[in-house]
Amino acid sequence: MPEAMNTEATTDKRVEFRVSPDRYRHWKLSTDGPVATLTMDVDEQGGLVPGYELKLNSYDLGVDIELYDAVQRLRFEHPEVRTVVITSGKPKIFCAGANIRMLASSPHGWKVNFCKFTNETRNGIEDATASSGQTYLAAVNGTASGGGYELALACEHIMLVDDRSSAVSLPELPLLGVLPGTGGLTRVSDKRHVRRDLADYFSTKSEGIGGKKAVQWRLVDEAVPRPRWDETVTERAAELAGRSSRPEDAAGVELTPLAKTRDDDAIRYDHVEATLDREAGRVDISVKGPQNQPPADIAAAAGQGADFWPLAVTRELDDLILDLRTNEPELGTWVFRTEGDPGRVLAHDELLLTSASAGDWFANEVLHYLKRTLRRLDVTSRSLIAAIEPGSCFAGSLLELALAADRSFQLAGVFEDKDQDAEPATMTLGDINLGPLTMSNGLTRLQTRFWGDEAGYEAAAKRRGEALEAEDAAELGLVTFAPDDIDWDEEIRIATEERASFSPDALTGLEANYRFAGPETMETKIFGRLTAWQNWIFNRPNASGPDGALRRFGTGQRAAFDRRRV
Amino acid sequence: MPEAMNTEATTDKRVEFRVSPDRYRHWKLSTDGPVATLTMDVDEQGGLVPGYELKLNSYDLGVDIELYDAVQRLRFEHPEVRTVVITSGKPKIFCAGANIRMLASSPHGWKVNFCKFTNETRNGIEDATASSGQTYLAAVNGTASGGGYELALACEHIMLVDDRSSAVSLPELPLLGVLPGTGGLTRVSDKRHVRRDLADYFSTKSEGIGGKKAVQWRLVDEAVPRPRWDETVTERAAELAGRSSRPEDAAGVELTPLAKTRDDDAIRYDHVEATLDREAGRVDISVKGPQNQPPADIAAAAGQGADFWPLAVTRELDDLILDLRTNEPELGTWVFRTEGDPGRVLAHDELLLTSASAGDWFANEVLHYLKRTLRRLDVTSRSLIAAIEPGSCFAGSLLELALAADRSFQLAGVFEDKDQDAEPATMTLGDINLGPLTMSNGLTRLQTRFWGDEAGYEAAAKRRGEALEAEDAAELGLVTFAPDDIDWDEEIRIATEERASFSPDALTGLEANYRFAGPETMETKIFGRLTAWQNWIFNRPNASGPDGALRRFGTGQRAAFDRRRV
Repeated sequence: MPEAMNTEATTDKRVEFRVSPDRYRHWKLSTDGPVATLTMDVDEQGGLVPGYELKLNSYDLGVDIELYDAVQRLRFEHPEVRTVVITSGKPKIFCAGANIRMLASSPHGWKVNFCKFTNETRNGIEDATASSGQTYLAAVNGTASGGGYELALACEHIMLVDDRSSAVSLPELPLLGVLPGTGGLTRVSDKRHVRRDLADYFSTKSEGIGGKKAVQWRLVDEAVPRPRWDETVTERAAELAGRSSRPEDAAGVELTPLAKTRDDDAIRYDHVEATLDREAGRVDISVKGPQNQPPADIAAAAGQGADFWPLAVTRELDDLILDLRTNEPELGTWVFRTEGDPGRVLAHDELLLTSASAGDWFANEVLHYLKRTLRRLDVTSRSLIAAIEPGSCFAGSLLELALAADRSFQLAGVFEDKDQDAEPATMTLGDINLGPLTMSNGLTRLQTRFWGDEAGYEAAAKRRGEALEAEDAAELGLVTFAPDDIDWDEEIRIATEERASFSPDALTGLEANYRFAGPETMETKIFGRLTAWQNWIFNRPNASGPDGALRRFGTGQRAAFDRRRV
Repeated sequence: MPEAMNTEATTDKRVEFRVSPDRYRHWKLSTDGPVATLTMDVDEQGGLVPGYELKLNSYDLGVDIELYDAVQRLRFEHPEVRTVVITSGKPKIFCAGANIRMLASSPHGWKVNFCKFTNETRNGIEDATASSGQTYLAAVNGTASGGGYELALACEHIMLVDDRSSAVSLPELPLLGVLPGTGGLTRVSDKRHVRRDLADYFSTKSEGIGGKKAVQWRLVDEAVPRPRWDETVTERAAELAGRSSRPEDAAGVELTPLAKTRDDDAIRYDHVEATLDREAGRVDISVKGPQNQPPADIAAAAGQGADFWPLAVTRELDDLILDLRTNEPELGTWVFRTEGDPGRVLAHDELLLTSASAGDWFANEVLHYLKRTLRRLDVTSRSLIAAIEPGSCFAGSLLELALAADRSFQLAGVFEDKDQDAEPATMTLGDINLGPLTMSNGLTRLQTRFWGDEAGYEAAAKRRGEALEAEDAAELGLVTFAPDDIDWDEEIRIATEERASFSPDALTGLEANYRFAGPETMETKIFGRLTAWQNWIFNRPNASGPDGALRRFGTGQRAAFDRRRV
């Protein structure tokens, strides 16, 4: 069915990802020493888009934006928190998953973008557990279905109330004709190790499984009778907190409101600026390096709070990616440039690296946040191009933008007309490119780039710290093309115009394949295998056609399926 | 666009996969001692379906059926062949890939099934190289585009003629708005280790890349000037043959014509029988164990030729899977039963295992063929159910059918009404389940089943050789359910009826995820990530809609794209 025939449940207003706990409509965040509690209590009337009610703790993008904000703040603002309990504020229901009317009435692109963000937030929950000593505990105090159970699956430990009615379930397939696509299938098999035939049965049984059987089948870790519920949750939260090495007496770093101006033509932050060329379908993104050398030590950096350059620039990039992905689907190519002093970038990186390896929590958080933000870029369905010009600072952490790009261009020499005495454009590998900023395949972008070419990797890595001009960078395989002044504009113009002439869908598929050479992880399986199948299913008449299961749900009419297996 | 509006280029006749070299229309197979040559010379008028001409050595399913047959025969009928040269019989063109008019006019399911079979054949080429000492050499004596280059990519060594006009290319994205989906993207990045940005550029450049640059970018292994072409091909073929340990003087085993009767209701071979229940959307498949003990040794087994039970039953299963997949898309559930003596199955397995580990080429071929056939089952988009009843022989190699199933049922006890004195149903693990029959994820089905549960795996493996009744098998996690006589029919009826009521697409996605827990390989990436994205793209209006690139190709009109990135 053509998408234009859908009742599109999108809003005319731009979606805004900046939020703070005092404005949450759907979540309550409270802390009690080392234990924080995130209580989901969705406001039925608080949907982001008109046309549906968020009943039974079902969620839409707006609910998940608040969850993402809370997960981020817990890491930065609450160094003392070691366990995060996710639970429900509604009786008998933990969470009913993504709102079905919202899904049914959304155009394809909205569904896909929504699922991607939801996936990223759940990956962030697992990253907090794995990298930050902030362990998530799902206190499933009522039925958790679909995305509700998928939220629990992202937690390290799942407790289910054992009351003969509460169950966990993945009813997407039997009820909606789609997959549990927000990590559900992958986490059931690859994280919780539910046997494949049991997983198959479970995923077709819409009422789900509770009690001891849920434990036996590994769907949850424990089933706890209601009378012992509160005390057991408290006990478990304390146990999990005991495993953490987060500091007890550090002061948190407040994620103060992000300064942003936004109109149809540009998005501007302190360090990041994007200009939107609708005709060309292109966004030009410029990232400014730090104005100063880094503070003397990481304590002073934490004292700068959200203004500390690496944190500030990461927050801005994060917000920009989310804004453009959600609000500007027709701008299919993003061109990255940087501006500033490479040495200062590397000095900031160095402070982060040495402090994090000395065990500093704040440096660790900034590094992992940068890692997550770059991973968000990797799974963004836009063509990414880096343009390395004189005056730029593609060094260390900022070089990752070029390494994340599908193609990169570095000017050989200088712009003769503009500034013939300028220093030529350079790029500089730093230690930060060799370790902590892994992609979701578990490798660095540099390793992925040289996958299967050990000698190429070694030759490049050996030159770290060196400001490489275009010819060297091209020779080492660190940049795709190194045109000179005469060809520069033309080459970049052709690359972006050509990109705009191709099928946007085919580009998405191409990039999703080429960006992830080498090993696979649960995360790449979720974004690759699971998401790709889900997107296919979302597009099929059996789900989204007028007689499809997703559209017919709740109408009293059964779906009419084309029975041919594909 | 509804599929019904397509001009469907499928034939009313059933597709038949049984073929032999004397009936090839598109390939010539010749051998010269240790070197075989497979020459592609496609008959333009020989399309499987009316409506297109197979120009420029482009191919359709019929062309690939012959290729598959040749690859199989080379392994069994030609133990002396150590190198297989794939080349073209047409001047200046190696192969133009899948026929575009065929693709454009095919319904979605046909495209997907065609690509799956093509992928399997290419994986089989790699399996011959890796497991059989029969190394494939692509002698690309003209331009290889799209699927033509993908065919070359499946070969171990790629030679390209260096004549200033011949090139390799993946023009799918720029010309057709789809992916090089028959392994192309995955093999470029993960097998040939082409750097991701170069791969990206290459895959958007429709004219492709030839000469030295193709070598530098690792797209081919060598570029050879035309004057030195023949001698270099001969030289390289001899070198590759030198690596092999295939026997010099063994007699081949002829793959004699497979006896098969086929009508609307049943498909029958000597050892395999399938009854087709169109109302229920189900196929009941029965596999007969060997009638006798195995021959005394592998030489005697080879003397039985294609009648040797393991080879015969594998050939029949292979043909049945292909027939049902292609000709019966509406029969969404396959129920496997077996019949015979488990001891005889295990004795045949044992002969294969001991002979293969002693270096016997024929035992090795049979084992790998069984492995490939079971892998074909794993990627089949049908729900698989195993029903283990009294008199069955789910042991060793045949137990793999139950381990491949999405769910299995084993009768606890006997059918009281039918034969109350029968021996209860059993299943038996054999050594063959613990090693050679790996899935495409590189693990055995047993390892995949117990992925993340080492203790469960050990407990099951320890019981090998033991005839396990239902309660034991269920306790060990080797079977999903163990109903008794009273519940048996009802449980299987409910399971199959329920399956038939679900969205066929969602089932395909579910199964494609749950069947492949654990590690990923190039093969799982091709069937998971790459294929799923391709299927999504095939479904999108930007490719297959009336204004899409695939439909508009060759009309002189440019495609009209919905520019929104998803």
